[in-house]
Amino acid sequence: MALRTAFTDLISVEHPVVLAPMSGTAGGALAAAVSNAGGLGLVGGGRQGLEWCREQLGLVVALTSRPWGIGFLTWGLETPTLAAALEQSPAAVMLSFGDPHPFADLVHQSGAQLIIQVTDLEEARQALDTGADVVVAQGTEAGGHGGVRSTFPFVPAVVDVATHTPVLAAGGIADGRGLAAALALGAAGALIGTRFEASQEALVSPETVKAIVDGTGEGTSRSRVFDIANGSAWPATWTGRALRNPFFSQWLGKEDELAHDDDVLAAYQEHVSQGDMSYETVWAGEAIDLIDDDPPAGELVTRIANEAEQALNRVLSR
Amino acid sequence: MALRTAFTDLISVEHPVVLAPMSGTAGGALAAAVSNAGGLGLVGGGRQGLEWCREQLGLVVALTSRPWGIGFLTWGLETPTLAAALEQSPAAVMLSFGDPHPFADLVHQSGAQLIIQVTDLEEARQALDTGADVVVAQGTEAGGHGGVRSTFPFVPAVVDVATHTPVLAAGGIADGRGLAAALALGAAGALIGTRFEASQEALVSPETVKAIVDGTGEGTSRSRVFDIANGSAWPATWTGRALRNPFFSQWLGKEDELAHDDDVLAAYQEHVSQGDMSYETVWAGEAIDLIDDDPPAGELVTRIANEAEQALNRVLSR
Repeated sequence: MALRTAFTDLISVEHPVVLAPMSGTAGGALAAAVSNAGGLGLVGGGRQGLEWCREQLGLVVALTSRPWGIGFLTWGLETPTLAAALEQSPAAVMLSFGDPHPFADLVHQSGAQLIIQVTDLEEARQALDTGADVVVAQGTEAGGHGGVRSTFPFVPAVVDVATHTPVLAAGGIADGRGLAAALALGAAGALIGTRFEASQEALVSPETVKAIVDGTGEGTSRSRVFDIANGSAWPATWTGRALRNPFFSQWLGKEDELAHDDDVLAAYQEHVSQGDMSYETVWAGEAIDLIDDDPPAGELVTRIANEAEQALNRVLSR
Repeated sequence: MALRTAFTDLISVEHPVVLAPMSGTAGGALAAAVSNAGGLGLVGGGRQGLEWCREQLGLVVALTSRPWGIGFLTWGLETPTLAAALEQSPAAVMLSFGDPHPFADLVHQSGAQLIIQVTDLEEARQALDTGADVVVAQGTEAGGHGGVRSTFPFVPAVVDVATHTPVLAAGGIADGRGLAAALALGAAGALIGTRFEASQEALVSPETVKAIVDGTGEGTSRSRVFDIANGSAWPATWTGRALRNPFFSQWLGKEDELAHDDDVLAAYQEHVSQGDMSYETVWAGEAIDLIDDDPPAGELVTRIANEAEQALNRVLSR
């Protein structure tokens, strides 16, 4: 038996498991692997630009005939990139962080479902006004960029606002217990990032996978340190959750100073180019306590879906 | 059908619903109401001292013949207070925030179950070493004092560490969906605070109840502002989540300055003594989006237990 929800019905997928479109990490092979296993794979378009997207969408189209999608950072999205993606007929387009309004019509005209990620209730209301077909309620425990609300109380609050629009829970979910809990809270599925970062198909280094497998939730923090070090254009509204390393610990609370220290920034780039993990950014969510392997992504989808059913049946069968 | 768990078996209660021992707010009448409805009521001994505890324990003993308990702040607990509580034969004693080791034997010798609340994995391991019969994994979304971990990923991580010891989830739970999600995550029940703060039996003012019913999760923050304003001895390790009000917003980020401004502190006390809600502390968790009434506490227990079963059956029946 599969866990049917309003989301699996809407997108015609088997499992309510969605690959978070981690920018540059969720490429075509990872998205296809998730889709082939019955989830929904979302390519991490982020703001990787047209060429990267063309290449990865070529891959996903070649590797799966199941529904797949692509996600973008709304604040950095340019219409030609979105248009090029829509030419490949994604089942869904996900927009995160920023005003989705300028892009909504283009997505809907293509026939794709519009998924909008939100980090507070005001953003949730805006997403619904914009015509979101699916709302992702993302908690602060998520890896990478996000807001301040926590998944547990935020998801049911968004469900209550969204009424008939399916909601996905994101942030802090790395196993089937988390998927089961998301569904119990009223969500129609789970959007999962860090768990898939430690999978065979993710576009990350072996050192990053090792850091995630070895890391703990208490070893992650939300800040702007890495955005500033990387010269990123991310708006200050959303901070990024990453594993703390010596570079991070040195500059936390001294972000303004860091932004203006050209010598330190140049040295940072030099260390990163050499793959020095004392400097490298490893985006990771608080749920990494639950991650201790890096199997093929398809195996993870099956495992999470099965565990979720077991978790629910375990509760009811006592 | 009731939701049986390892916790309901251990304590011999009907529902896996536990009243958080909110210091000074969870008095004997509230604890008895929760216990009489089939949950476990915990009197909020906090560090209210011997007289308050005697009075409230007198009430709870008079009002219920079901299992009940009492909770203390470990860092402020004195042995005579604990001993006086144990004379009333509580079914459980809960210790939060601080080293529980000096009190564990006394609790166990009385025959009471020892419940220890933790806010990170290191504290969880210490609690198990101390002989906790039940571990409460508290997330940062909780009202009042707490740590930085979020409930959703923290609970399963504690469950994995605790192996056969029952775990309660705390923080962000205010309805049956939350209880259902807690159980799905592997918890054996939910410890619920703010939801019961807005109940008929809570020892709070009507203005506090109104602030909770009207408030939003995004209107709460974790800080030391109110501890400093109240001259509280709380260790800085744990901050308090409360509703932001004008006084709070004025002093957030200027805590050191506040601590040394005797005029402001005196004016604060004056306003609070007049019940001025622009100054008053209202401890509240992020789940207050889900709270819009203040019924009798027993009604809440029944409602939460019924909703949780419905939520689980809804997920599995599609």
